[in-house]
Amino acid sequence: MADTAYTKETRNTVRRHRERGQYDFATVHSIVNQASILHVSFLPTDPLEDPFPTILPMIGSVGLFSNPDNDPGAQPLDLYIHGHSASRLMRLPTAQGLEQVPVCVAATMLDGIKLALTPFNHSCNYRSAVLHGYASIVTDEAEKSWALALITDGLVPDRWDNSRVPPTKAEMTSTTVLKVSVVSASAKVNSGEPGDDRKDLKDDAVTSSVWTGVLPVHEQIGAPQPSSTNKVAKVPQYLDQWWQAENTKRETYAHDASRPK
Amino acid sequence: MADTAYTKETRNTVRRHRERGQYDFATVHSIVNQASILHVSFLPTDPLEDPFPTILPMIGSVGLFSNPDNDPGAQPLDLYIHGHSASRLMRLPTAQGLEQVPVCVAATMLDGIKLALTPFNHSCNYRSAVLHGYASIVTDEAEKSWALALITDGLVPDRWDNSRVPPTKAEMTSTTVLKVSVVSASAKVNSGEPGDDRKDLKDDAVTSSVWTGVLPVHEQIGAPQPSSTNKVAKVPQYLDQWWQAENTKRETYAHDASRPK
Repeated sequence: MADTAYTKETRNTVRRHRERGQYDFATVHSIVNQASILHVSFLPTDPLEDPFPTILPMIGSVGLFSNPDNDPGAQPLDLYIHGHSASRLMRLPTAQGLEQVPVCVAATMLDGIKLALTPFNHSCNYRSAVLHGYASIVTDEAEKSWALALITDGLVPDRWDNSRVPPTKAEMTSTTVLKVSVVSASAKVNSGEPGDDRKDLKDDAVTSSVWTGVLPVHEQIGAPQPSSTNKVAKVPQYLDQWWQAENTKRETYAHDASRPK
Repeated sequence: MADTAYTKETRNTVRRHRERGQYDFATVHSIVNQASILHVSFLPTDPLEDPFPTILPMIGSVGLFSNPDNDPGAQPLDLYIHGHSASRLMRLPTAQGLEQVPVCVAATMLDGIKLALTPFNHSCNYRSAVLHGYASIVTDEAEKSWALALITDGLVPDRWDNSRVPPTKAEMTSTTVLKVSVVSASAKVNSGEPGDDRKDLKDDAVTSSVWTGVLPVHEQIGAPQPSSTNKVAKVPQYLDQWWQAENTKRETYAHDASRPK
């Protein structure tokens, strides 16, 4: 049987709350592609001169150029991020003199705030994925175009085909796409109601005074605000249907995640 | 006059879209304390064996123990994060054999998706802060308690005093607080409508077919869901007022950020 999960290694094994750890391709990939923002971390060029890693917030998606219509749960995928060619992250392979730069990418969605009797038992509902891999510049033009469409449609489905495409040559030159070949990955998912210690639950003075439960949280998309130069009077259907359905989906997830398991 | 901003150094200077860079204490600190999730990155223990940095999502706040009622715009603040004493990040100083571990902390809020005529000009409205500093374990008991209250009230204001406190000795032992002494920091803020190239704006075939504008985005808090063991029938006022006011504040910010500047 083919693998359906990332291998558990020292680097990606969830140790605290092991029961929250998930390694299957489907879960890891769906978290990355559902998270609006990815955080990308890289090492300093010269740790003796400057010892700090750096994190930058980015937009990106996972996919498989060699088989774009793949089942995202069937195999490891590559992660693509893009930016202006002059930006710090996109210049990283050149700046560090490496074809492949080791990076870490985190995708996190907060799903709720869990309020327990005591601060110690407060926690959050969330879905998070952490990937480690090597970032390199995509030089193949077909792969680059495909990745740009993947990332754009990751923001708003079908947006690529509904905007002015293909990009001009100048636009393509000004944009760099980095592909992260994933070497390890894992996800961590927490849901349900807060847990409390038996001793607190038996203390009437405590239970009668402290409200416990979950505040569900989701990222809400507001009604589309046309720009001052917009000439299309009606919000197109692909966009109007998407943001409303997406809100319902997200709100439902957060609400369901708040329930006792 | 006393400094009111972090010094611009190589590490924290915003280079792409310099006009979005902000260094003042007030902006950096308010982004960190408004973001629900912080991403914390650290270096590998032995880069020759494992070359990857790692990012973990965390909860935390900035504050000043020596002067808790400070004006957050008046001086640099320390960043506090907490976790179970056995967790990877909390064990980091011990595991790396360092009293002070170099870390990077990122706080990001997505405020909108900007849809331009061409994918190249798509972008996002956001507020982000990136801090570099040294993380060390807080050993002073008074500072540790104060930091735990700061972090808990950062999740939901006034929650600390409205839960079962003080923590037991076992709870305090099981919890570690890391303090990050910030050595450099900057913020990047983008708002407004999408920008388009003159050539596209003059092309009637393009402008008549592509809707442009902003989808405002904010993190929405849902109605409190009581846990199965909750005994307080009515959601307390400090909580009920907060989540509703917070939603209004966040929604208003995202909506206002979508307007032409």
